[in-house]
Amino acid sequence: MEKIKLKNLCDLPDAPCYAVIFSSQVLKMDAAYAETANRMLELASQQPGFPGVDSVREKKTGITVSYWRDEKSIQSWKLQIEHQQAQEQGQSSWYKEYSVRVARVERSYVFCQDDK
Amino acid sequence: MEKIKLKNLCDLPDAPCYAVIFSSQVLKMDAAYAETANRMLELASQQPGFPGVDSVREKKTGITVSYWRDEKSIQSWKLQIEHQQAQEQGQSSWYKEYSVRVARVERSYVFCQDDK
Repeated sequence: MEKIKLKNLCDLPDAPCYAVIFSSQVLKMDAAYAETANRMLELASQQPGFPGVDSVREKKTGITVSYWRDEKSIQSWKLQIEHQQAQEQGQSSWYKEYSVRVARVERSYVFCQDDK
Repeated sequence: MEKIKLKNLCDLPDAPCYAVIFSSQVLKMDAAYAETANRMLELASQQPGFPGVDSVREKKTGITVSYWRDEKSIQSWKLQIEHQQAQEQGQSSWYKEYSVRVARVERSYVFCQDDK
Protein backbone atom coordinates (compact mmCIF):
# COMPACT_ATOMS: atom_id res chain seq x y z
CA MET A 1 0.00 0.00 0.00
CA GLU A 2 1.34 3.39 -0.97
CA LYS A 3 2.12 5.64 1.95
CA ILE A 4 -0.34 8.52 2.29
CA LYS A 5 1.43 11.87 2.35
CA LEU A 6 -0.08 14.71 4.32
CA LYS A 7 0.05 18.11 2.66
CA ASN A 8 -0.67 20.64 5.38
CA LEU A 9 -0.23 18.73 8.61
CA CYS A 10 3.00 17.36 9.98
CA ASP A 11 4.06 14.13 8.28
CA LEU A 12 6.09 11.74 10.41
CA PRO A 13 8.78 9.36 9.24
CA ASP A 14 8.16 5.64 9.75
CA ALA A 15 10.79 5.52 12.49
CA PRO A 16 9.69 5.69 16.14
CA CYS A 17 9.42 9.15 17.62
CA TYR A 18 8.23 11.22 20.56
CA ALA A 19 5.57 13.89 20.78
CA VAL A 20 5.93 16.93 23.03
CA ILE A 21 2.41 18.21 23.66
CA PHE A 22 2.42 21.82 24.83
CA SER A 23 -1.01 23.15 25.82
CA SER A 24 -1.17 26.72 27.07
CA GLN A 25 -3.32 29.60 28.14
CA VAL A 26 -1.81 33.05 27.80
CA LEU A 27 -2.72 35.97 30.03
CA LYS A 28 -2.87 38.23 27.01
CA MET A 29 -1.69 38.04 23.44
CA ASP A 30 0.80 40.73 22.51
CA ALA A 31 3.14 41.30 19.58
CA ALA A 32 6.19 40.15 21.55
CA TYR A 33 4.47 36.87 22.41
CA ALA A 34 3.47 36.18 18.80
CA GLU A 35 6.97 37.04 17.60
CA THR A 36 8.61 34.76 20.17
CA ALA A 37 6.20 31.90 19.44
CA ASN A 38 7.01 32.10 15.73
CA ARG A 39 10.72 32.34 16.46
CA MET A 40 10.51 29.18 18.60
CA LEU A 41 8.83 27.26 15.77
CA GLU A 42 11.56 28.44 13.42
CA LEU A 43 14.33 27.51 15.87
CA ALA A 44 12.83 24.10 16.68
CA SER A 45 12.70 23.26 12.99
CA GLN A 46 16.46 23.84 12.78
CA GLN A 47 17.18 21.38 15.60
CA PRO A 48 18.48 17.94 14.71
CA GLY A 49 15.99 15.06 15.15
CA PHE A 50 12.94 17.22 14.51
CA PRO A 51 10.42 15.63 12.12
CA GLY A 52 7.93 18.48 12.45
CA VAL A 53 5.22 20.30 14.36
CA ASP A 54 1.50 21.09 14.33
CA SER A 55 0.45 24.25 16.14
CA VAL A 56 -2.95 25.88 16.61
CA ARG A 57 -4.11 28.89 18.63
CA GLU A 58 -7.70 29.87 19.38
CA LYS A 59 -7.93 33.12 21.29
CA LYS A 60 -5.90 32.59 24.47
CA THR A 61 -5.56 28.82 24.25
CA GLY A 62 -2.95 27.05 22.17
CA ILE A 63 -1.79 23.52 21.46
CA THR A 64 1.56 22.84 19.86
CA VAL A 65 2.60 19.26 19.23
CA SER A 66 6.23 18.95 18.20
CA TYR A 67 7.70 15.62 17.21
CA TRP A 68 11.22 14.45 18.01
CA ARG A 69 13.31 11.51 16.95
CA ASP A 70 14.45 10.61 20.46
CA GLU A 71 14.80 11.80 24.05
CA LYS A 72 18.20 13.30 23.30
CA SER A 73 16.70 15.62 20.67
CA ILE A 74 14.03 16.72 23.17
CA GLN A 75 16.67 17.48 25.80
CA SER A 76 18.80 19.47 23.34
CA TRP A 77 15.80 21.57 22.39
CA LYS A 78 14.79 22.10 26.02
CA LEU A 79 18.29 23.42 26.78
CA GLN A 80 18.68 25.51 23.62
CA ILE A 81 19.68 28.94 24.98
CA GLU A 82 17.16 31.14 23.17
CA HIS A 83 14.42 28.62 23.98
CA GLN A 84 15.40 28.73 27.66
CA GLN A 85 15.08 32.52 27.69
CA ALA A 86 11.64 32.20 26.07
CA GLN A 87 10.59 29.64 28.70
CA GLU A 88 11.60 32.04 31.49
CA GLN A 89 9.79 34.94 29.89
CA GLY A 90 6.79 32.70 29.33
CA GLN A 91 6.53 31.95 33.03
CA SER A 92 7.14 35.53 34.17
CA SER A 93 5.01 37.36 31.59
CA TRP A 94 2.87 35.42 29.19
CA TYR A 95 1.38 32.22 30.49
CA LYS A 96 -1.53 31.85 32.83
CA GLU A 97 -0.96 28.10 32.75
CA TYR A 98 0.50 25.41 30.60
CA SER A 99 1.20 21.71 30.48
CA VAL A 100 4.05 19.91 28.74
CA ARG A 101 3.60 16.21 28.08
CA VAL A 102 6.30 14.05 26.62
CA ALA A 103 4.84 10.95 25.02
CA ARG A 104 6.22 8.11 22.94
CA VAL A 105 4.29 7.65 19.70
CA GLU A 106 3.10 4.05 19.55
CA ARG A 107 1.17 4.20 16.29
CA SER A 108 -0.13 6.63 13.73
CA TYR A 109 -2.95 6.79 11.18
CA VAL A 110 -3.35 9.41 8.52
CA PHE A 111 -6.14 10.29 6.12
CA CYS A 112 -5.92 12.52 3.08
CA GLN A 113 -8.87 13.33 0.84
CA ASP A 114 -8.07 13.09 -2.87
CA ASP A 115 -8.09 16.45 -4.59
CA LYS A 116 -10.99 18.01 -2.81
CA MET B 1 5.73 19.60 47.05
CA GLU B 2 2.08 20.41 46.56
CA LYS B 3 0.68 19.30 43.24
CA ILE B 4 -0.10 22.18 40.91
CA LYS B 5 -3.69 22.09 39.72
CA LEU B 6 -4.52 23.44 36.28
CA LYS B 7 -7.70 25.47 36.04
CA ASN B 8 -8.55 25.69 32.36
CA LEU B 9 -6.43 23.04 30.72
CA CYS B 10 -6.78 19.31 31.14
CA ASP B 11 -5.31 18.03 34.40
CA LEU B 12 -4.01 14.47 34.36
CA PRO B 13 -3.98 12.02 37.23
CA ASP B 14 -0.59 10.80 38.47
CA ALA B 15 -1.23 7.37 36.98
CA PRO B 16 0.24 6.50 33.57
CA CYS B 17 -1.90 7.35 30.58
CA TYR B 18 -2.05 7.65 26.82
CA ALA B 19 -2.57 10.66 24.59
CA VAL B 20 -4.53 10.46 21.35
CA ILE B 21 -3.38 13.40 19.24
CA PHE B 22 -5.88 14.23 16.51
CA SER B 23 -4.71 16.95 14.10
CA SER B 24 -7.06 17.86 11.27
CA GLN B 25 -7.81 20.15 8.39
CA VAL B 26 -11.44 20.49 7.40
CA LEU B 27 -12.59 21.23 3.87
CA LYS B 28 -15.10 23.71 5.20
CA MET B 29 -16.59 24.46 8.58
CA ASP B 30 -20.35 24.03 8.74
CA ALA B 31 -22.92 23.86 11.51
CA ALA B 32 -23.19 20.06 11.28
CA TYR B 33 -19.44 19.70 11.72
CA ALA B 34 -19.32 21.98 14.75
CA GLU B 35 -22.29 20.17 16.29
CA THR B 36 -20.74 16.75 15.72
CA ALA B 37 -17.35 17.87 17.06
CA ASN B 38 -18.98 19.13 20.25
CA ARG B 39 -21.04 15.97 20.56
CA MET B 40 -17.88 13.83 20.26
CA LEU B 41 -16.20 15.79 23.09
CA GLU B 42 -19.32 15.27 25.21
CA LEU B 43 -19.48 11.54 24.40
CA ALA B 44 -15.75 11.00 24.99
CA SER B 45 -16.03 12.57 28.42
CA GLN B 46 -18.64 9.95 29.32
CA GLN B 47 -16.36 7.05 28.40
CA PRO B 48 -14.64 5.13 31.18
CA GLY B 49 -10.89 5.72 31.53
CA PHE B 50 -11.03 9.27 30.16
CA PRO B 51 -9.04 11.77 32.25
CA GLY B 52 -9.76 14.69 29.90
CA VAL B 53 -9.14 16.58 26.69
CA ASP B 54 -7.66 19.80 25.31
CA SER B 55 -9.05 20.96 22.00
CA VAL B 56 -8.28 24.02 19.86
CA ARG B 57 -9.40 25.10 16.40
CA GLU B 58 -7.94 27.92 14.31
CA LYS B 59 -9.84 28.43 11.09
CA LYS B 60 -9.70 25.10 9.25
CA THR B 61 -7.00 23.48 11.37
CA GLY B 62 -7.67 21.76 14.67
CA ILE B 63 -5.77 19.83 17.30
CA THR B 64 -7.57 17.73 19.89
CA VAL B 65 -5.52 15.83 22.45
CA SER B 66 -7.60 13.38 24.44
CA TYR B 67 -6.10 11.41 27.29
CA TRP B 68 -6.94 7.83 28.16
CA ARG B 69 -6.09 5.55 31.03
CA ASP B 70 -5.08 2.60 28.87
CA GLU B 71 -5.22 1.04 25.42
CA LYS B 72 -8.51 -0.65 26.25
CA SER B 73 -10.20 2.70 26.88
CA ILE B 74 -8.87 3.99 23.55
CA GLN B 75 -10.22 0.95 21.71
CA SER B 76 -13.65 1.28 23.35
CA TRP B 77 -13.86 4.90 22.30
CA LYS B 78 -12.71 4.13 18.76
CA LEU B 79 -15.49 1.54 18.44
CA GLN B 80 -18.21 3.59 20.13
CA ILE B 81 -21.06 3.47 17.61
CA GLU B 82 -21.87 7.17 17.33
CA HIS B 83 -18.16 7.94 17.16
CA GLN B 84 -17.76 5.44 14.32
CA GLN B 85 -20.54 7.15 12.37
CA ALA B 86 -18.82 10.49 12.93
CA GLN B 87 -15.51 9.05 11.71
CA GLU B 88 -17.18 7.82 8.51
CA GLN B 89 -18.86 11.13 7.92
CA GLY B 90 -15.58 12.89 8.66
CA GLN B 91 -13.84 10.98 5.89
CA SER B 92 -16.65 11.35 3.35
CA SER B 93 -17.61 14.98 4.01
CA TRP B 94 -15.53 17.07 6.38
CA TYR B 95 -11.84 16.35 6.44
CA LYS B 96 -9.29 17.32 3.90
CA GLU B 97 -6.71 15.47 5.95
CA TYR B 98 -6.01 14.33 9.46
CA SER B 99 -3.56 12.38 11.55
CA VAL B 100 -4.24 10.32 14.64
CA ARG B 101 -1.27 9.53 16.88
CA VAL B 102 -1.50 7.31 19.88
CA ALA B 103 1.30 8.02 22.32
CA ARG B 104 2.18 6.84 25.81
CA VAL B 105 2.72 9.76 28.18
CA GLU B 106 6.16 9.35 29.73
CA ARG B 107 6.24 12.50 31.83
CA SER B 108 4.36 15.71 32.42
CA TYR B 109 5.12 19.23 33.68
CA VAL B 110 2.57 21.86 34.49
CA PHE B 111 2.81 25.56 35.28
CA CYS B 112 0.11 27.75 36.78
CA GLN B 113 0.52 31.46 37.43
CA ASP B 114 -0.77 32.54 40.82
CA ASP B 115 -3.84 34.70 40.61
CA LYS B 116 -2.97 36.66 37.52
